[in-house]
Amino acid sequence: MRHASGISESDLLARLARFQIETPSWGYADTGTRFGKFLQDAAATTVEEKLADAAEVHRHTGCCPSVAVHVLWDFPAPANEADVRRVARLAESVGLRIGSINPNVFQDACYKWGSLTNRDPVIRRRALEHVLDSIRVGQSVGSKCLSLWFADGTNYPGQGDIRQRKRWMSEGLAAVHGRLPADWTMLVEYKPFEPAFYHTDLADWGMAYVLAKDAGSRARVLVDTGHHLPGCNIEHIVAFLIDENMLGGFHFNDRKYADDDLTMGSIDPYQLFRIFHEIVSVEQDRGGVAAGAKADLPIAYMIDQSHNLKPKIEAMIQTVMTAQEMFTKALLVDREALRAAQSREDLVASENCLKDAFATDVRDLLREHRRAHHLPPDPLAAFRASGYAARAAAERGPRKTAAASSYA
Amino acid sequence: MRHASGISESDLLARLARFQIETPSWGYADTGTRFGKFLQDAAATTVEEKLADAAEVHRHTGCCPSVAVHVLWDFPAPANEADVRRVARLAESVGLRIGSINPNVFQDACYKWGSLTNRDPVIRRRALEHVLDSIRVGQSVGSKCLSLWFADGTNYPGQGDIRQRKRWMSEGLAAVHGRLPADWTMLVEYKPFEPAFYHTDLADWGMAYVLAKDAGSRARVLVDTGHHLPGCNIEHIVAFLIDENMLGGFHFNDRKYADDDLTMGSIDPYQLFRIFHEIVSVEQDRGGVAAGAKADLPIAYMIDQSHNLKPKIEAMIQTVMTAQEMFTKALLVDREALRAAQSREDLVASENCLKDAFATDVRDLLREHRRAHHLPPDPLAAFRASGYAARAAAERGPRKTAAASSYA
Amino acid sequence: MRHASGISESDLLARLARFQIETPSWGYADTGTRFGKFLQDAAATTVEEKLADAAEVHRHTGCCPSVAVHVLWDFPAPANEADVRRVARLAESVGLRIGSINPNVFQDACYKWGSLTNRDPVIRRRALEHVLDSIRVGQSVGSKCLSLWFADGTNYPGQGDIRQRKRWMSEGLAAVHGRLPADWTMLVEYKPFEPAFYHTDLADWGMAYVLAKDAGSRARVLVDTGHHLPGCNIEHIVAFLIDENMLGGFHFNDRKYADDDLTMGSIDPYQLFRIFHEIVSVEQDRGGVAAGAKADLPIAYMIDQSHNLKPKIEAMIQTVMTAQEMFTKALLVDREALRAAQSREDLVASENCLKDAFATDVRDLLREHRRAHHLPPDPLAAFRASGYAARAAAERGPRKTAAASSYA
Amino acid sequence: MRHASGISESDLLARLARFQIETPSWGYADTGTRFGKFLQDAAATTVEEKLADAAEVHRHTGCCPSVAVHVLWDFPAPANEADVRRVARLAESVGLRIGSINPNVFQDACYKWGSLTNRDPVIRRRALEHVLDSIRVGQSVGSKCLSLWFADGTNYPGQGDIRQRKRWMSEGLAAVHGRLPADWTMLVEYKPFEPAFYHTDLADWGMAYVLAKDAGSRARVLVDTGHHLPGCNIEHIVAFLIDENMLGGFHFNDRKYADDDLTMGSIDPYQLFRIFHEIVSVEQDRGGVAAGAKADLPIAYMIDQSHNLKPKIEAMIQTVMTAQEMFTKALLVDREALRAAQSREDLVASENCLKDAFATDVRDLLREHRRAHHLPPDPLAAFRASGYAARAAAERGPRKTAAASSYA
Repeated sequence: MRHASGISESDLLARLARFQIETPSWGYADTGTRFGKFLQDAAATTVEEKLADAAEVHRHTGCCPSVAVHVLWDFPAPANEADVRRVARLAESVGLRIGSINPNVFQDACYKWGSLTNRDPVIRRRALEHVLDSIRVGQSVGSKCLSLWFADGTNYPGQGDIRQRKRWMSEGLAAVHGRLPADWTMLVEYKPFEPAFYHTDLADWGMAYVLAKDAGSRARVLVDTGHHLPGCNIEHIVAFLIDENMLGGFHFNDRKYADDDLTMGSIDPYQLFRIFHEIVSVEQDRGGVAAGAKADLPIAYMIDQSHNLKPKIEAMIQTVMTAQEMFTKALLVDREALRAAQSREDLVASENCLKDAFATDVRDLLREHRRAHHLPPDPLAAFRASGYAARAAAERGPRKTAAASSYA
Repeated sequence: MRHASGISESDLLARLARFQIETPSWGYADTGTRFGKFLQDAAATTVEEKLADAAEVHRHTGCCPSVAVHVLWDFPAPANEADVRRVARLAESVGLRIGSINPNVFQDACYKWGSLTNRDPVIRRRALEHVLDSIRVGQSVGSKCLSLWFADGTNYPGQGDIRQRKRWMSEGLAAVHGRLPADWTMLVEYKPFEPAFYHTDLADWGMAYVLAKDAGSRARVLVDTGHHLPGCNIEHIVAFLIDENMLGGFHFNDRKYADDDLTMGSIDPYQLFRIFHEIVSVEQDRGGVAAGAKADLPIAYMIDQSHNLKPKIEAMIQTVMTAQEMFTKALLVDREALRAAQSREDLVASENCLKDAFATDVRDLLREHRRAHHLPPDPLAAFRASGYAARAAAERGPRKTAAASSYA
Repeated sequence: MRHASGISESDLLARLARFQIETPSWGYADTGTRFGKFLQDAAATTVEEKLADAAEVHRHTGCCPSVAVHVLWDFPAPANEADVRRVARLAESVGLRIGSINPNVFQDACYKWGSLTNRDPVIRRRALEHVLDSIRVGQSVGSKCLSLWFADGTNYPGQGDIRQRKRWMSEGLAAVHGRLPADWTMLVEYKPFEPAFYHTDLADWGMAYVLAKDAGSRARVLVDTGHHLPGCNIEHIVAFLIDENMLGGFHFNDRKYADDDLTMGSIDPYQLFRIFHEIVSVEQDRGGVAAGAKADLPIAYMIDQSHNLKPKIEAMIQTVMTAQEMFTKALLVDREALRAAQSREDLVASENCLKDAFATDVRDLLREHRRAHHLPPDPLAAFRASGYAARAAAERGPRKTAAASSYA
Repeated sequence: MRHASGISESDLLARLARFQIETPSWGYADTGTRFGKFLQDAAATTVEEKLADAAEVHRHTGCCPSVAVHVLWDFPAPANEADVRRVARLAESVGLRIGSINPNVFQDACYKWGSLTNRDPVIRRRALEHVLDSIRVGQSVGSKCLSLWFADGTNYPGQGDIRQRKRWMSEGLAAVHGRLPADWTMLVEYKPFEPAFYHTDLADWGMAYVLAKDAGSRARVLVDTGHHLPGCNIEHIVAFLIDENMLGGFHFNDRKYADDDLTMGSIDPYQLFRIFHEIVSVEQDRGGVAAGAKADLPIAYMIDQSHNLKPKIEAMIQTVMTAQEMFTKALLVDREALRAAQSREDLVASENCLKDAFATDVRDLLREHRRAHHLPPDPLAAFRASGYAARAAAERGPRKTAAASSYA
């Protein structure tokens, strides 16, 4: 069977089978807003629980074999070799592997004025050491990817010397890159604001690009879909970075106002589709599905959202299903017709190539894909039927202390 | 001496002397972002400390005689009459009075799905009771102002029935107003997002206006300067509400991106000046400074900001000084020249009436005003010289437990 | 056959058959940006051509029987009774009727400083007279709907007296309403900016609501989907206005940045779906499809977009098809399941009720609907095959003078 | 006399005397919005008139000796050497010189689908030729600066191949740079939207930076202060570009919503001050005022605004006065105190260094500066008193044809 788009169903299913997306360990834990956290009985607290939950997501969706970890939250400190390896074995024991390594240089009180951009060389050094430690942790657990986000910035005009901070950030990133194993990628994330509210040292993709370029050849830009100013054309940035060979990965989530960290595609699914469309377009140029995995762009697809109110595992499964749906729709764009319409400046027809693919209901196709891979056709329903959440709540809930956090 | 604007210096100083602004008890406590709080040794923990700090601000600025309180954070629960009166006496003992009463129906886990708009009538009732309790607390401490902010809203399309929630909010506000003492004002605050990220039940001034009107004759709209979408012309809303006799008060702070809660005037001082200009314009129409206090608009000026990094008392003094500065500049607008320029559609001249007032350096004038009222001419320097902060840090710091909060 | 949502196919088709959307005469003419217009040979110039084009859209889609007219652009001035009736007959002769009447009080140089809010009473009177004339024109052509948009506002702080202008606007709207025929509706549109860039007299729905209420009982608010600040939750406003019985109609279009006036649903189709979902929800509460037309909300659905680059008629047909698609998806929301999920605060399931309806491919259903009404199943393809555009270009192109407009 | 900031008055006046800002020829002509132009009798139509008007601005302010020209609007086409030289002589005859050269590859109908990114190689070539012609024009008139803005982009998803267009833009810019005289600078401007509403080929500073770098060593980024998404921290971009030696110049104007093109500093003067603060900070590091002109950064300060309603020359004089005022305030920042406060993370004190400089009334200082340079102390009043505008209106008005432009 061939779809209107010209892609054969078997090609489509083959590409879909290679689509994987990484879930974050912290996505299974309780999170909240500055006004407080509403704790969930079933949410994970320990790394064992987080990995068990991530395994549930993978068990039901089949496309989330790796888990991103936060060094501070998922490993004992200081992390000794044995403890670290234990986490890797834990992951393996539930059918997972450790994916990207995320240092944490924003939570400790010493980072109040910044980490790599802190005026105090002792703190800069401490931040750097933590990042280098994180690389070591990653090596012990078989990771190949260092994912860097910095909360560094200032809250008021005059607070910091913006250029000096830029240079410290540049030095820090270069120092990290200097110690990056040869087969690793280093991802540099940007964010316009929050928790800093006047300026952030890596405010946009341009700054991340320039400093990543300066840092070294294995540094790439990480696009968090929630880290843009209103109206920003994210797919344009994605296409631009791919063309510069500088797109390293995504932190997926959705937003309506600020960095709302809602579940992926929950607010603007068409934008998500367009992002995938730009990616698939390049893969098409590289030989397409026919070329097999070697045409796939080496992009780390990762989820990073803060589903404060939704049950964690359900939210994650819903997210993964949405990601698959939008990726599949992007595969359905009739690229030949699109090129033809573009070539005659036929705006209505070229836009309709996208609209038609987006309008196509791919849920049956995804069910078929899942059956073929011995997965439940409706992962969410299957998970709900499994009773896992109730068991987790019963077991974990009593151990939780009442939410003590308060805004003021 | 007459200023270019035509206002005499004595009139100006008389109006300035009546300019008061309320500081919030929670502005002296540790606050943070969802990524954590960086505790300050000198920040207040108890209501005694908050009142002592607020008294410092008033002692040095002379224009902050009242303190807004949060029922949950500043009073024992359940608040018995004796405890409540003790707080009022405490305030009095340091030269302050209790200002607006702020219920808290967002922190408790029971409000996860809303307070007055919660689907569960038990929770709606509980929220209502807390608000009514807050009125009683207010009566015991001599307040006349109930200030209402609700975190109610939803995070995802479909989560709630928007119209049903509107009706619950309407019912709740009417029930509150039904129990409002005759000489009280009830302020209804609006906010477009956070902590709810898809819709908030009172999203903008229009919704607050409609529901306040429905609630009763003593309900007014509260404008928090940080609670608007990008680009919003806040002074227009202010002028519109004044003309409708529906502006009840302000929560002042500044923002660059979202509800950043930066100190007032730190990002866009000209906007703050324009807000005061709209207010002063109306007072001018009501007889102006010559008419004395009876021309002053009955607007509650309140500060509500989250100076996470700045030392609390210093931040508050800086804020109050900025407020006075911008209010004074607004008094300097040459309204006769402005009207004349407007009447001939002379855009450049009419705009320059505002620009000239704004360009005027009023710091000497403010120093003069302070000296005349036996206040330190530079409140910030005087506070810094007082050693208060160091003493507070020494006394309070050791009692603080290390920041235990974590994002995930 | 019943859909998963529970609505029977016949009910769905019956409701769909009553879905109509008005196209604007100016949507067939050449428009552009401030940087210039790129003229299209086939675009309409005369009212005859505009009506002929609108008839093409209706002929192919079957749901656009009425055309909105702009008094200044579509009628001779001064409009004598005979000329006006001729336009109505012209419309009738091509199977259309005249829909909403749009006065134009922004193009003439006399409105440089405003129309109803102009300081000069002569101009205010002139603007009012034009609006009253427009009502008379509307009566002659059988319209029942006056649609009001004002470009009034200011470009600089200080330029205007905001409160005075509010009062003039209020007086003007009341005067118009005083002359509104008893069976007419008067729609009041709002817009945050452009062409005024500091403040617009009717900046948001709240201002339109308050002044419409003041004007009289037949005034309603008109929501132009492009007239909101970034992030605004439009469906919330829609639901709020419906609940207040104050939603009069829509000007549909889409936007990414400002008032981009792109074709409806081209940027954010899910938002459009959510708007329809709020409307259909209310209709459901009023008896649903089973109740027939009497459950339909009396909302004027109108298109108002500026497809500068797309061929006009194609753009309009594409728009209408998108509108039908999103409206149909909204009909498919399983409201019983939604209510059940909401009642147990099951966020994932309640959101999925919307996502599932949105994911459903309704294009076959729409083809079926069209066939049943003797319409081409693919209106766009049919129009393209008709050769109309080429004929129009051949006939109209040579009469066009070269684009003389220049930015500066 | 020394200012609190530590800068001596003579140093300050010396630096101020070197502050120059270029006015654009098109700033003297009638402009408008897509809804129409309101013609001004006194606005210039011919290049003679524009230069005469620019000369008025320079005569009264003393700091606008150069005029930016738009090749299409200011020179006959095709521009022969004699005609071009005549314009240069005209400028010289009124005491001016020609500044930056602005090609126009957006107005002609052939650019409907783009200029350098047009799919049609004939159009790409034509655009390139026009830019190269513009360089030749510039050489004939003694310019050293090519200023490039492209309206290129798309309005709908799918309309264009974003990556292909990037490559065409890259090729085009490289081709231009290849023909750039050795002592010229080529400025590349970016803009997020308008007139393209889905994507613009040079959407942000990052894209302009990457493509300028690729083009060659004399390409720099041009920052138009109105070309950013809401909330963008422009001074951060400025500081970043300076540190990369990639800031070429500014197009100054102000905005509240979109690219409103209001007069500089009319909406957010503090932001303008902060931009100058970042620049002056670097100059301070390069030796400061003591070092004389060699410490001045080679940045082209240019005005580019669309004062549709304000009288053109008055608007320009007001703008220049504002620019001088904010630049002077930036010179007053006490950099030693700032560094000291920053070094102890004293946020309140470091911010106050900026606030204090901003609060200082520099209008007397500017009057002094003007008197010392034999300029009218109040340029606006002097211009108004000159009667120039009335004479221009009397002479030019009758020659203007009534505004024929219409939105639709």
